[in-house]
This record gives sequence, structure tokens and C-alpha cells, in this order.
Amino acid sequence: MRIIVDAMGGDNAPEAPVRGAMKAARELGVDITLVGRREEIGKYLDGAGRVVTITDAREVITMEDDPSTATRRKKDSSMAVALTMLKSGEGDAVVSAGSTGALLTGATLIVKRVRGIRRAALAPVLPAGEHGVVLIDCGANVECTPEYLLQFAFMGSFYAKNILGCENPKVGLLSNGTEPTKGAELQKEAFKLLQEASVEGRINFIGNIEGNDVMSGKADVAVTDGFTGNVFLKASEGMIKFAMGKLKGVFYKSTKNKLAAAALKGDFMEMKDSLDVNKIGGTALLGISRPVIKAHGSSNEEAIFSAIRQAVAFARAGVIDEIAKNTEYMRLPSEGAVKTEE
Amino acid sequence: MRIIVDAMGGDNAPEAPVRGAMKAARELGVDITLVGRREEIGKYLDGAGRVVTITDAREVITMEDDPSTATRRKKDSSMAVALTMLKSGEGDAVVSAGSTGALLTGATLIVKRVRGIRRAALAPVLPAGEHGVVLIDCGANVECTPEYLLQFAFMGSFYAKNILGCENPKVGLLSNGTEPTKGAELQKEAFKLLQEASVEGRINFIGNIEGNDVMSGKADVAVTDGFTGNVFLKASEGMIKFAMGKLKGVFYKSTKNKLAAAALKGDFMEMKDSLDVNKIGGTALLGISRPVIKAHGSSNEEAIFSAIRQAVAFARAGVIDEIAKNTEYMRLPSEGAVKTEE
Repeated sequence: MRIIVDAMGGDNAPEAPVRGAMKAARELGVDITLVGRREEIGKYLDGAGRVVTITDAREVITMEDDPSTATRRKKDSSMAVALTMLKSGEGDAVVSAGSTGALLTGATLIVKRVRGIRRAALAPVLPAGEHGVVLIDCGANVECTPEYLLQFAFMGSFYAKNILGCENPKVGLLSNGTEPTKGAELQKEAFKLLQEASVEGRINFIGNIEGNDVMSGKADVAVTDGFTGNVFLKASEGMIKFAMGKLKGVFYKSTKNKLAAAALKGDFMEMKDSLDVNKIGGTALLGISRPVIKAHGSSNEEAIFSAIRQAVAFARAGVIDEIAKNTEYMRLPSEGAVKTEE
Repeated sequence: MRIIVDAMGGDNAPEAPVRGAMKAARELGVDITLVGRREEIGKYLDGAGRVVTITDAREVITMEDDPSTATRRKKDSSMAVALTMLKSGEGDAVVSAGSTGALLTGATLIVKRVRGIRRAALAPVLPAGEHGVVLIDCGANVECTPEYLLQFAFMGSFYAKNILGCENPKVGLLSNGTEPTKGAELQKEAFKLLQEASVEGRINFIGNIEGNDVMSGKADVAVTDGFTGNVFLKASEGMIKFAMGKLKGVFYKSTKNKLAAAALKGDFMEMKDSLDVNKIGGTALLGISRPVIKAHGSSNEEAIFSAIRQAVAFARAGVIDEIAKNTEYMRLPSEGAVKTEE
């Protein structure tokens, strides 16, 4: 197993990607290819031995680059080179903390989507429920069709089953109420498609779920368009930050409180970390034909390590195969692309 | 000042509305009309004196009633009677903890919208920033046009100014990124309209805001469609509940922690209440020609009291007048309804 790491992506590159990759090489027993400026990577490489190799790439995609053209214009960027290596079989997965938009476009153009999948989706796993909850899509596709949501439901379901170990994952459609009549046209149409797929036994659709049902673990997979998913995720992030600020106010309110807070500090910080959406690890780009994991832009060594571990699990599991085998059930006949033996 | 209270609306009716109204009569010096079944209301009335009167209404709108027809079919319901009294000037505002959908439809059909306003919107005030943040719309209108969002921006802005005491309120458009190009078609088109209104000096548009910007108080008014607003609010609610559950885990983890938690209990519970979206008081129905306040369905006496206080402020302030005076700036010429002197 070889994981290709974009050493130049993210706010803390190249130090965090390099150190996180070395840790993964040591602790997970995987081979690593670091892609980026050799001399800059070299500064942080110490005693990693033969399992870490470097592929030199001179350019870096920054947040200022236009995501839709970045990997095409900067063919010698660490991200484009990493994706090209994945495409040509020189590794089993790519991990990058670089621009989400550029990685999405690059993965779609270079590595390509699974045949039959219309759009790749960002599918972070939220720390809720028994196994975690897959939120799909959370930002890749702002305008969606009901068919996209159907595909997200299948892909999220396969991910929850194969990676999170969730048997028969419960799929919920994020809406503004639980009744089937709730939602805009998109949700109403998607509801019907998800219900049909559920009747056929291909997914386990539990109906509409509301915003407060996601973190309660009512569903294992929460399906939504990228606009709503993005607002959902950032609303949650904002509320946590707000609540933690208020809590800090309580902790510092009086000497009595300060003493009590000191006793709680260790456990509290641990809990706070568990709620930090920046620390939920990498986000899978589902629908791409090989495993690509987006690590958070602000990833430190630990976060990169965790994203690599996730990439290993992704590469080992049969998610992409299962997606590829089932695309015929994820397409609308009206779109003229269904080919079956019947 | 007379506030008309739907005594039969909400999970804790009629006790909570009656007791909350009596408290408001005593402490706020306002006259109250309680609408509902006289004998049931009578059970909880004690010593309220002349300031509380009862208007008998025999029917009750329940959560099982179809919201779109409830106030028409149940003309003798407490909600329909309360709204009819408001329309005919027998009071200055209505407060109801009954079905949101029925109240919206009822207010629109009976009390009517401000002339020129296309849709009424739900505008809760979130406990963020210096003055609170108005989130508009948060569930009334699932499918919106850019023009609706323009109207929400004006209405939210007038509310923030007149009720929250916020000078020149900053208006943000909720999107999936801060750049003007972010969002679906709806947001992109609305962005242009809001920008034009801002250039003309009619609102203070600060551009797109993201989900995590709302609770940070970046804007005083967060404008969005009802679908996204609903998901936003419920996502926030769900995340708070999740975080508080985790925190409880920390508090109970060990004897040391339990002792520390005991010392923090009072201040902690107070903070927890301040984050409870169910306790943020009433939600104004903006765009209706007279003040209507929706109290949360689970309102207790205190929450009803707080909604009545809000109704008093709403009725005293010039929000509705200001909306009515400015409708010509909130309409798109293409929709053929703008009448100006020019």
C-alpha cells in the first residue's frame, strides 16, 4: 500500500504533511510518496528510511489560484503531479490539504469519475451516532438534480458500510420537516427516487430528517445538496465555537469557577477536540475512480496522519468497486444513460 | 396597549399562555385579551383583575390540522378569532404558541400582508453579536425568488433597527462562501439586488456570509430562504444538544469532575438556557400588516411572558410603518408592480 501525499498543500505545508506522512510510515506500515519541492520537503525528513520517497514537483497551487483551472495550468504542481501518479497506478490513494475546489476539479479531470457517476461529492464523517454520520454532499455541488442526490445516497451508503462498519446504513434526506411533502422541488423529487431505491432493497432510506436529527444519529448517511450541506456544516461549527466561548465565560466568572474549571481542564479539552470539525480527519471525494482524501486546510501533523489512516482504510475497502458495480441503479432512465441486461 | 393571546396554542396550553399573560399584565402594565375556551382559561386565572379579559372561542387548532386551511375551516378557533380581533383593531398584537404554519397562513389570510410585500417571513433573533442577529426567513418560504430575499433584507433591517436598537444594521446573505460568485442562482441574483439597494443607501449590505459567521455576529441580519434558514436553525439546535450531551459526559466522568461540576452548576445552567433556541422568545412574522408573534410550541409561562414583551416592543416600534413606506424599493420592475412618482 502506497499513499501519495501532496506535501505542499495546506496552511502548514510542507512541515505538517511531511511529519504526518513520516508518522504514518512508521506507525501504519505504509509506503509514502511525498510530492513537492524536494529541498523544502528534505528539511523535515529525518530517519524515515526507505518507505518515504519524494517526487519532485516545482509548482504549488495556492488559495489564490482559480480552482477550476489550477491543476491544468499548473501541471507541475504537487497536487496535479500527485493526482497523475494516482491515475497511472503509482500509488493507492492521494491525500491533500490543498484547495478543496482545485482538488475536486483536478481529481475529476485527471483521475476521472467512476463511469456513470455524474458528480463527485464531499463526504465528511461527523462524530455522531454509533459509527459516525456521513454528510454528503457538503460543498462540491451547489446546484443539484434529484439524480445527483440519489447517487450521493448510494455512495454515502457504501462508504458507511465499508469504512465505518455500519450494517445496512440508514439514509436520511435533509429537509425542513420529516413529512414526505417537505422540502423544495429538489427534495420532493429526490424523496421519490430514494424511496424507490429503498423499496428495491438497494439502500435503507428512512425518509426526511431535519437539521437537528443529524447529530442525534437518527441516520448514518445524511443526503443533501452541496449548498445546504455547506451551510449545515458551518452552522454547526459556528454554534460550537459560540457555545465554547460562552462556556469559557462560565469558567472564568469567579475564583470558585476557575478552580472547578481547572479540575475539569484535561477532560474538557479532550471533549472540545472531539467536537472540532477541523479535527474530524479527512473528507473523502466520493465518485472519483480512485481514493482521494481532502485533509483540512489547517491540518497539523496529527490531522495529516489521521487523513492518511483514512486513505488507507478507503483504499483497502471495496467502496469504489461497489459504487462502480451499482451505477445502473443510480441513473434516471430519462437521462438516457441506463444500460441493463434486461 | 392591548395584546391578544391565543390561550389554546402550544404544548402547555392553556396553563402557560394564561399564566404568562397574567404575569405580563402585572409586570408590563399592558391589557391582555385571552382567546379560547372560557372555562379552561378560568381555571388558571386568579386575581388578574380588569386588565385581563376573555374572548370565548370554542375550537382549537392542533398540530394535526392542515396548516393551509386550519384558520379557514376552524373559524371559531382561538387562533382565528385572535387574528380576526387584531385585524378589526380590538388589540395591538397577537401572540400564539400554536402551529407555525397555521399562524402564518391565518395571519396572511385574515390580517393580510403589508401591501407590496410578496411573502411574510419568520424572523427569530439569535443570541449573537451585540444586539442579537435576525435570521430571516427561517421556514415560512421554502421556495424563494431573489425579490423575496430582497424584501427579507429590508424587513430584517427595519426590525433590527427599531426593535434591537441596532443603528445601520449590517445585512449578510447566507451562502457557501463569501465571494459574490458563491451560491446557487438564487443567491447570485439576490446578491446583485442587495448590492444595488446598498449602493442606494437603503440597506447596509456587507456581502455573503457563511454558516459560521452568523453566530459570530458578523452581520446583524442574516438573509436566507426558508429552507436553508430552517436547516441552519435546526443544525445549530442539534449541535448545541450534542455538545451539551458531551459536556455532561465530562461532568459525570469521575468523582473529581462531579465535584467540580457541582460548583459550576448554577452558572452553567444559566449559560445552557441562553443557548436554548426554544428559549429565544417569540419569532416575529415580518411582512404582516399588524404585529404577530409566534411563541415556541413548547413555551412555558416564562417564554409566553417573554413573547408578550416582544409583542409590546413590536407594536410600539415603527417597523411595520417603515416596511409599508419602503415597499416601492423592494419590488422588481420586471414583476410589473412598482408604482413610483417618477
